[in-house]
Amino acid sequence: MSLTRPRLEDIEDAAVRLSGKAVHTPLLGAPLLYRELGGRLLIKPECLQVTGSFKFRGAYNKISRLSEREKRQGVIAYSSGNHAQGIAAAASLFDAPAVIVMPADAPAIKIANTKAWGAEVVTYDRHGESREEIAGRIARDRGLTIVPPYDDPAIIAGQGTVGLEIARDCEALGIVPDAVVICCGGGGLSSGSAIALAAAFPTADLHTAEPAGWDDTARSLASGERVANEAVVPSLCDALLAPMPGELTFPINRDLMRSGVAVTDVEVVTAMAIAHRHFKVVAEPGGAAALAAALAGKVPVAGRTVVAVVSGGNVDPGLYARLLGEVAT
Amino acid sequence: MSLTRPRLEDIEDAAVRLSGKAVHTPLLGAPLLYRELGGRLLIKPECLQVTGSFKFRGAYNKISRLSEREKRQGVIAYSSGNHAQGIAAAASLFDAPAVIVMPADAPAIKIANTKAWGAEVVTYDRHGESREEIAGRIARDRGLTIVPPYDDPAIIAGQGTVGLEIARDCEALGIVPDAVVICCGGGGLSSGSAIALAAAFPTADLHTAEPAGWDDTARSLASGERVANEAVVPSLCDALLAPMPGELTFPINRDLMRSGVAVTDVEVVTAMAIAHRHFKVVAEPGGAAALAAALAGKVPVAGRTVVAVVSGGNVDPGLYARLLGEVAT
Repeated sequence: MSLTRPRLEDIEDAAVRLSGKAVHTPLLGAPLLYRELGGRLLIKPECLQVTGSFKFRGAYNKISRLSEREKRQGVIAYSSGNHAQGIAAAASLFDAPAVIVMPADAPAIKIANTKAWGAEVVTYDRHGESREEIAGRIARDRGLTIVPPYDDPAIIAGQGTVGLEIARDCEALGIVPDAVVICCGGGGLSSGSAIALAAAFPTADLHTAEPAGWDDTARSLASGERVANEAVVPSLCDALLAPMPGELTFPINRDLMRSGVAVTDVEVVTAMAIAHRHFKVVAEPGGAAALAAALAGKVPVAGRTVVAVVSGGNVDPGLYARLLGEVAT
Repeated sequence: MSLTRPRLEDIEDAAVRLSGKAVHTPLLGAPLLYRELGGRLLIKPECLQVTGSFKFRGAYNKISRLSEREKRQGVIAYSSGNHAQGIAAAASLFDAPAVIVMPADAPAIKIANTKAWGAEVVTYDRHGESREEIAGRIARDRGLTIVPPYDDPAIIAGQGTVGLEIARDCEALGIVPDAVVICCGGGGLSSGSAIALAAAFPTADLHTAEPAGWDDTARSLASGERVANEAVVPSLCDALLAPMPGELTFPINRDLMRSGVAVTDVEVVTAMAIAHRHFKVVAEPGGAAALAAALAGKVPVAGRTVVAVVSGGNVDPGLYARLLGEVAT
């Protein structure tokens, strides 16, 4: 595997490693919704994945490639929650110890599940401390392998199996998507999936979706170079709050994405309700960003076939009930 | 096809007809839940099926077998909602007119979706009128083919593809279930699935799950002959309120089911919340009955591998938010 950019073969290799371990999530349609939108909108529900998000794919692929000694020593990761659960679950399948550095204000369900998978959780203050520094120090002290959330070829290749499955399932159904929209934090899912999708559908428009105010990838794609978010603004999308595009992920996205779009919290909550009503899946706020972009017309659906990745479903039930209740009534 | 009981080959034929039309829903696990239960509990989420329930399978299989003339004339069905949507959607794929006789107090989402699929909806009073009589009269007047909700070999065979997919997916994963629990109204899903499951796993215990007070199949299985429910009691499980086991479905269930179990509304709501938290799918009350039976220990999970069919997800969002909020807080 290249040290900077996975090839299609690396994604195919990851798919073989993940076979029988990850869920091959189905493409889901909603014909009644097509009539409202004037076009076909399918979702790839990675909320149904092991640990409730796509993150298990990259984590499993990465850990599967470590040496026996590295696995025995253990791994460490920093994450707002979904990567944490993915690493904790994958590590447990290899009997590898796992330490996860998580913000103290991460959703309770994500912290609880990470612990339940057997990982040791170390919390930090999102606004005052550097998670990279904390993780680096513990890794050195204990001889752990750091598993970064996105800037790693094996992680990118693992997340890319989402795009590979979309491509294969579309081909089996005779569907040629006009556009695919992918939720974007640091860019692992979007860049990996784009490699597989661009190979299968060279004419499809590929887009990243980010929360408003956290659209560093959209602005970086527009300017051609990596730019950071300027201010920390509130967002429901805790899974997508990366400060700037990844060093490895951004060049891939720059080559393969048509553009990035940003969505508001209101658009995200509407998408969560549509995911509930039309697709019968539980989407967390960040997981609904790509669907929100399509529903809001920021990636046009009318007269086209669009696939939106719903990247996760780990939302506290009380918050979910409140948000859904507000939209339903 | 036999006039009374589909064979395994009829279910395999239905699976071919449904290929590319119905969703092959994945088997979903939840390892964190296994630890709480001391055993492995998988779900078959038919809430992800076209129209939000397994009913599309039987409806599509049945209508696909009508003559061109019968399709042109149209079909009529009576249903509390999920069969209605299944018939309306399948009929629209064959450009066949569809009339659906629905109780006036069916969930709003089910009536609205049935109309959105292009069907004509005729409502009746669940407590005073006979839906069979109304449907029969309209069928005669307009030359429509009646598509019964369960007592029809093509319907049973279509629903049986749920069991066939469970069997094939378990085999691919090397899983031999100790038990499979299936939601039961009139018995189409349970009897059809049992034919496929008993062929694949002769030693597995097969169970029906029904709402408390509507456990006609459980009592009929215990007594060996069809008995009706004695009184009309309230239940959240609108999809499962059949008065007595079907003439065609019951003999199959009697031959193949180990027993039937009944679940309370509280157990059902708990199961809806577990479906949300651990499996990230939206289950309607009736759709959660089999999962409820496993979670409540009425079908034991400890030390075993159990598959529960989540048969549908068509629940009004406001009700869902209220029920989830009550459990979450």
